[in-house]
Amino acid sequence: MAASQPDAPTRWRLELAWDGRAYIGWQRQPELQGRSIQQTVEEALARVLAGEQVRVEATGRTDAGVHARCQVAAFDTTHARTADGIVGGLNHHLPRDIACLDARPAPAAFDPRRWTRGKRYRYRLMVRRARCPFRDGRVLHLPRTLDLAAMQAAAPALVGRHDWSSFRARGCSARTTERELTAVEVHATDDDEVWIDVVGNGFLRHQVRIMAGTLVEVGLGRLPGADLPGIIAARDRDAAGPTLPPGGLWLMAVDCPMQPRPT
Amino acid sequence: MAASQPDAPTRWRLELAWDGRAYIGWQRQPELQGRSIQQTVEEALARVLAGEQVRVEATGRTDAGVHARCQVAAFDTTHARTADGIVGGLNHHLPRDIACLDARPAPAAFDPRRWTRGKRYRYRLMVRRARCPFRDGRVLHLPRTLDLAAMQAAAPALVGRHDWSSFRARGCSARTTERELTAVEVHATDDDEVWIDVVGNGFLRHQVRIMAGTLVEVGLGRLPGADLPGIIAARDRDAAGPTLPPGGLWLMAVDCPMQPRPT
Repeated sequence: MAASQPDAPTRWRLELAWDGRAYIGWQRQPELQGRSIQQTVEEALARVLAGEQVRVEATGRTDAGVHARCQVAAFDTTHARTADGIVGGLNHHLPRDIACLDARPAPAAFDPRRWTRGKRYRYRLMVRRARCPFRDGRVLHLPRTLDLAAMQAAAPALVGRHDWSSFRARGCSARTTERELTAVEVHATDDDEVWIDVVGNGFLRHQVRIMAGTLVEVGLGRLPGADLPGIIAARDRDAAGPTLPPGGLWLMAVDCPMQPRPT
Repeated sequence: MAASQPDAPTRWRLELAWDGRAYIGWQRQPELQGRSIQQTVEEALARVLAGEQVRVEATGRTDAGVHARCQVAAFDTTHARTADGIVGGLNHHLPRDIACLDARPAPAAFDPRRWTRGKRYRYRLMVRRARCPFRDGRVLHLPRTLDLAAMQAAAPALVGRHDWSSFRARGCSARTTERELTAVEVHATDDDEVWIDVVGNGFLRHQVRIMAGTLVEVGLGRLPGADLPGIIAARDRDAAGPTLPPGGLWLMAVDCPMQPRPT
């Protein structure tokens, strides 16, 4: 698409990946020291777009230290660019711990947050004695033994529409606490990892990290899996397990197509 | 095992893993600036062994920037330690990019280099347009298309006992150039990677990186796979493909049991 074409799209859909170790999370937070992913992507886009200051909006926030294998975001620009020009230009100007995986023209009304139908998060645990030089800060090292079968038997109790008040950070400001999860699965890999995968269309603050912390309590034999329905029913943060650290949490995929969510 | 026991083993077999990005390679090289893995492990061992200066010998060298998923090494000590004490102590004192995976008492004659029966190396390529924030420096990014079937068809020509003079760094000082490879395999993963796995009992300097560079030439359509036997027969470094960078190369496994290699 040549720069002179008048019908160049002005709204773009991006797919981004990042290692969250060096960032305060997705969202710009002027009261916090440190850089956000959002600000870093906007600064790189300004270099791709001849200095234009654009606002990049994602499907939602992610916490400091959390990683994204694929997050969807959008921005408007008055500059005509090709998709290859945006992907290549962003990857040239972004630091090595953030990458642009894809860019494509989007409908003018495209709204990543409202159009998202679901997200898949993964909490990664490395269950063995020795450290791993390749997973530091990306996978939680648990030098213990986990009862995988107990975790797998307990996980389905977390599927469905529930009030998640027990699995919510104390500082969470969401007005409603009901959310629906469509899958909660526990897998073991051949590389000493245990993955806790959670799929839903909305999450409270720290919800996945508290869910993972509670399932790890089950795996360590400290909590009977049969207690999970009661923990949900308690609607009390003290009833659930600990909040696991952010470095093991990955936003794996976002189901955010180019058409609005059916209402 | 208490520290006072007189029959404590004095020779140990170690399994080590490292991210090679920050190091000049396994071997101490006083003429080079920078730290070696060997020196770093010896310094950590000295802290575990109450200051004792020990020499750690591995099954062979690895180049600067090359990674090890599992390398075997050995050392002697006059201090009694448990296996847990050595693993835990090393992982406490080593930097985050080196880990001790295992330690166990070994026969006094245990010789990692001579007792090794085989090694598996993997050259990892990421074949896609966009960078990846998680694999930088660990996987070679190739923003091209590879003809995987052509590479897979060509690879078996590299198996067997050959004179590898065509696949040898110009500075290689090995006295003999014949080595036997028992497997050369090309796999695609579901994560955009192509792996070139090479198994053998000995390698010339840069041999795997030149073999990978030559197979990539086949995958890019620049070299017919049928040319490989002629390239081996040429015994001329100029006949083979380029030496790929060290960051994509992994020492995956070493077959180094606790008994001497049959002669």
